[in-house]
Amino acid sequence: MSLLVIGTVAFDAIETPFGKTDKIIGGAATYASIAASYFTDNINLVSVVGDDFPKEAINNINEHGINTQGLQVKKGEKSFFWSGRYHNDMNTRDTLATELNVLLEFDPVIPDEYQDCEFLMLGNLSPAVQMTVMDRIVRRPKLVVLDTMNFWMDSAWDDLIKAISRVDVLTINDAEARQLANEYSLVKAAQKILSMGPKYLIIKKGEHGALLFNKEQVFFAPALPLEDVFDPTGAGDTFAGGFIGYLARTRDISFDNMKRGIIFGSAMASFCVEKFGTERLIELNTDEVDERVQEFIDLVQFDITLVK
Amino acid sequence: MSLLVIGTVAFDAIETPFGKTDKIIGGAATYASIAASYFTDNINLVSVVGDDFPKEAINNINEHGINTQGLQVKKGEKSFFWSGRYHNDMNTRDTLATELNVLLEFDPVIPDEYQDCEFLMLGNLSPAVQMTVMDRIVRRPKLVVLDTMNFWMDSAWDDLIKAISRVDVLTINDAEARQLANEYSLVKAAQKILSMGPKYLIIKKGEHGALLFNKEQVFFAPALPLEDVFDPTGAGDTFAGGFIGYLARTRDISFDNMKRGIIFGSAMASFCVEKFGTERLIELNTDEVDERVQEFIDLVQFDITLVK
Repeated sequence: MSLLVIGTVAFDAIETPFGKTDKIIGGAATYASIAASYFTDNINLVSVVGDDFPKEAINNINEHGINTQGLQVKKGEKSFFWSGRYHNDMNTRDTLATELNVLLEFDPVIPDEYQDCEFLMLGNLSPAVQMTVMDRIVRRPKLVVLDTMNFWMDSAWDDLIKAISRVDVLTINDAEARQLANEYSLVKAAQKILSMGPKYLIIKKGEHGALLFNKEQVFFAPALPLEDVFDPTGAGDTFAGGFIGYLARTRDISFDNMKRGIIFGSAMASFCVEKFGTERLIELNTDEVDERVQEFIDLVQFDITLVK
Repeated sequence: MSLLVIGTVAFDAIETPFGKTDKIIGGAATYASIAASYFTDNINLVSVVGDDFPKEAINNINEHGINTQGLQVKKGEKSFFWSGRYHNDMNTRDTLATELNVLLEFDPVIPDEYQDCEFLMLGNLSPAVQMTVMDRIVRRPKLVVLDTMNFWMDSAWDDLIKAISRVDVLTINDAEARQLANEYSLVKAAQKILSMGPKYLIIKKGEHGALLFNKEQVFFAPALPLEDVFDPTGAGDTFAGGFIGYLARTRDISFDNMKRGIIFGSAMASFCVEKFGTERLIELNTDEVDERVQEFIDLVQFDITLVK
């Protein structure tokens, strides 16, 4: 069994109130697969870069036990590049540049040895590409998680609706949930989105935590209150990677285990924002992860006995 | 032993996307004392109204077991009146009218029979009045909770700083915490505010829950995800009243018990916003409160065992 992660592998240039970077390594699949690597082995990556992408960066990904046979390197082409500037509140940002480059013609190839895929993470990409990946995996995985964003709601609505109708878990942020459902109330939005196909919905609220819904239940996980959020780039992808990595390790897709997955995902995201890019994420060890999860337990744990 | 609640008893006129009211009964002390009444007896109210304030409304307060001997009724004067319009997000509002009336010359009188005060809720009022109340209570209460707002930071900074240096628990919202500490990070803001005197700080984040800090610990309680927030007026006061009411009932002011108090306060606030004004709050029973608290337990409860 394996975990398959698709999404972008890319360059980012980031400005925050704390500083700015040159082109650094980023991309949804980079963050998600590295986050997952702290929980499970046998992670397979599908993505595309240009030949401007440093071999060293691919080696770093491999060193986390991630198979990059499905990472296409396009000769003479340039990697996807995104540049953004965060505002003081760190919750809003301006996009300064989006150069699709290799993504324009991305045709995802699934190597044969990836076909034992049991957990599938469809990181943020065009819904058409996300569907192609689902089509090309012969045996339906045990769990399919799809992450998307408002960009695809604006530009590829019909494809997106088709794609999300085929997945088990959809992850989006609160503004996107409101847009997708055309409902301000997140509770109402969640039920409307669940009627579109996914069995589970995770609404990411950034510094305000995350909500997990199915048709009967709701679970809330806080974000850890941090002294400083240094760079939020990749936090959502890291969260999703930690979530599905934990589920892949435990091979338990019950609601109760998804709660645990969300706590582990939130812990990984809380590391991600402490430094620029993947810098903090690549240097972790499992003791640090466990300590961070303990902080989440301490943060929300209370003991009330109601007398019936 | 008793719980003393000071704050406004007033008229409100409210517009929300769901409708608008004529003048209805409101005021910080009204919400806080009614919320507390579901947890503890022996609640004493100190406030002031004009003779335009309906006797029936005072009777309603009394019927919740709240002593109004300290509620001054000023002949020929008008009660405090506030009017506001909430935006679609229900988190922001415009103040349409603020008529201070009887509040302008409010000199809080503490009846002798209130002097057994063990728990003191200083609801939102001028810090000068809040301090006068502290001065006039002969024996220092076991716990003093002060609620305030940005208005006093803008208009009575020095008094406010003096007042909060004398209390045990300060409750403010996230924007006010940032303003008071001049720090964007809530973690840094909290530590700065705790250095100003209070032993505990509660930061209210509305639909995003509440944080409890002391110098070593932090606790986070979510808000219940609701289908609709009908009218947020009084939710913060209701939260504070439920919090101190629970502490007064249990007479335990440890950090762990404050966590429970915050959950009970959050449950009361979640009722408050379901109808206009105090309408929902006055009609509750303890079974409903317990059921709501159980929803909070279900919302955040997870079970992770870390292997050391």
